[in-house]
Amino acid sequence: MGVRDEILEQPASARRFLEDEASAIERVAEEIRARSIDLVVVAARGTSDHAAVYAQYVFAVRHGLPVALATPSAVTQYGAQPRVERALVVGISQSGRSPDIVAVVAAARRGGALTLALTNEPGSPLATAAELLIDLLAGPERAVAATKTYVAELLALAGLSLAIRPDGADERALERLPETLAAALEAEPAAQGAATRRREMTRCVVLGRGFEYATAREWGLKMKELALVLADPYSSADFRHGPVALIEPGFPVLAVATSGAVLPDVRELLQRLRDEQGADLLAVTDDPSVVSLAADHLPVPPGVPEWLRPIVSIVPAQLFSYHLALARGLDPESPRGLGKVTLTR
Amino acid sequence: MGVRDEILEQPASARRFLEDEASAIERVAEEIRARSIDLVVVAARGTSDHAAVYAQYVFAVRHGLPVALATPSAVTQYGAQPRVERALVVGISQSGRSPDIVAVVAAARRGGALTLALTNEPGSPLATAAELLIDLLAGPERAVAATKTYVAELLALAGLSLAIRPDGADERALERLPETLAAALEAEPAAQGAATRRREMTRCVVLGRGFEYATAREWGLKMKELALVLADPYSSADFRHGPVALIEPGFPVLAVATSGAVLPDVRELLQRLRDEQGADLLAVTDDPSVVSLAADHLPVPPGVPEWLRPIVSIVPAQLFSYHLALARGLDPESPRGLGKVTLTR
Repeated sequence: MGVRDEILEQPASARRFLEDEASAIERVAEEIRARSIDLVVVAARGTSDHAAVYAQYVFAVRHGLPVALATPSAVTQYGAQPRVERALVVGISQSGRSPDIVAVVAAARRGGALTLALTNEPGSPLATAAELLIDLLAGPERAVAATKTYVAELLALAGLSLAIRPDGADERALERLPETLAAALEAEPAAQGAATRRREMTRCVVLGRGFEYATAREWGLKMKELALVLADPYSSADFRHGPVALIEPGFPVLAVATSGAVLPDVRELLQRLRDEQGADLLAVTDDPSVVSLAADHLPVPPGVPEWLRPIVSIVPAQLFSYHLALARGLDPESPRGLGKVTLTR
Repeated sequence: MGVRDEILEQPASARRFLEDEASAIERVAEEIRARSIDLVVVAARGTSDHAAVYAQYVFAVRHGLPVALATPSAVTQYGAQPRVERALVVGISQSGRSPDIVAVVAAARRGGALTLALTNEPGSPLATAAELLIDLLAGPERAVAATKTYVAELLALAGLSLAIRPDGADERALERLPETLAAALEAEPAAQGAATRRREMTRCVVLGRGFEYATAREWGLKMKELALVLADPYSSADFRHGPVALIEPGFPVLAVATSGAVLPDVRELLQRLRDEQGADLLAVTDDPSVVSLAADHLPVPPGVPEWLRPIVSIVPAQLFSYHLALARGLDPESPRGLGKVTLTR
């Protein structure tokens, strides 16, 4: 079992999660509805922190809730005791073992918050520290670079949002996601080709905005972990405030540019980067106008609602990062300096 | 007037701000104390977003307040209406003109939040949108890369924190900061030397943690804007969760490793990156053990309390970025593709 196997396993693990964890999610939603929650705090690191970014948009847009991403060192290193009586505090961790994430959730529970763990290890310290649990049910994840647990984390957040505020059409779209994920895997030949053509790259930026900002962040991390490419992720808005200066002719720009409310803004930036600064554009997209703009594109299956699409659009990005590692002669199963569980304090 | 002039001007503009804006800050603090605030939301882009990161730690550690960094597109692109009745919503912008930041503050004010603008333009749309104003008093900032307004933003946040929760020793340290900033400028020869030795670099990472995570973020942006180096900033904790794989022999690692609670964690990581992965370490530091660890260091004057130190430690980083631009034959006054005011929606 390697990282490619786990990427290919995502439709099956998504189906298992949606079928077997639905009633647990419903119970968590009932607890949330029963409380006066006016803030969500999410504590996470690495890949799980990108699920936290997705949570920022989901809870803000669908529930009108401000979302704070925890700064664990404020608690673990400086002894902060944030006021969280009216907060839902969510710890997200594949292993459930990073001490700083456990500490933030434990401190929040002592402080009166409603606490929830999203983890693939239901017996872990994180699961024990939190009052509520959603088990990711992704099966053992052995590759160092997380893939299927990331998709499971997003599914858990989307499912929880729908359980709190139901929407029939979106629930049906969520139920169809295992098939959509299977269709997304068909991007593999395109990903392999685009990776081969870019095997000399050592640095790039990754752009996305809104819900897909999470995808840009996670793609950037896969590029670092698997392909050892310094991939710097930005929202298209923040990118204009300075980092745009970096782009010179041939500079690789990876973009998550899928259809929806933010696409005009993202596309306008990509057009400028290509026409005025000569960027080499690789886009993950379901939109024909982006296909014609980019030098290469990785297809995302059509028909997914915008707010659920990050669950699917990460798949071509995972495949590209994996094949770029191979094209660069690297072993994607043994990223330099990494173990599967990282314990930070 | 160029960017170097504005870097050198920082002690004088800091002195002016501390002397002339103290009573305005006191009035803002009174309004905050008079309300039931249990959340701070900060909306900002680019350099100002790094002042927002500083605010995360200041309000969490000194006031026990959760801090959410706004995701403006949730409001401007997806129509979110976050619940902010019990929040202080702070917009930070040098120009006060970015429409998305103005929109977040205006929506929050309509939603019942206490709103505050930190801007260098007291007649700007942001200043008008917010109920309260702190004027940065930095004088015209003409260089595209912001320097003195960043220091003024941090001073405003630190001053506000001290006005809300006074502390005699820290107030005296704040008052001494103009002299400390002048002492920090003495790092220029070291910055020039370290830059000359690294003039071939095209990518690097920038590490910091806790309060100094803001400094790492801002140093990374200066490296991009001025020296066109892809500089990816990380907290030392997040860096262990994946990106550490990037470091190969000779890879430049810039670190903000100043004394305080998080230094043991940062130093442990730097030691590992140097000894096991061969990183080329350049440290901004006031600590002798880091000086002996790093290939090069840029000195930070001693005696500044940890939570105020980011106001000072950015100065050697600014000087390094400026001199790296010169060493690379670039014009630091005209970053490619950038104007002084960036309007994002």
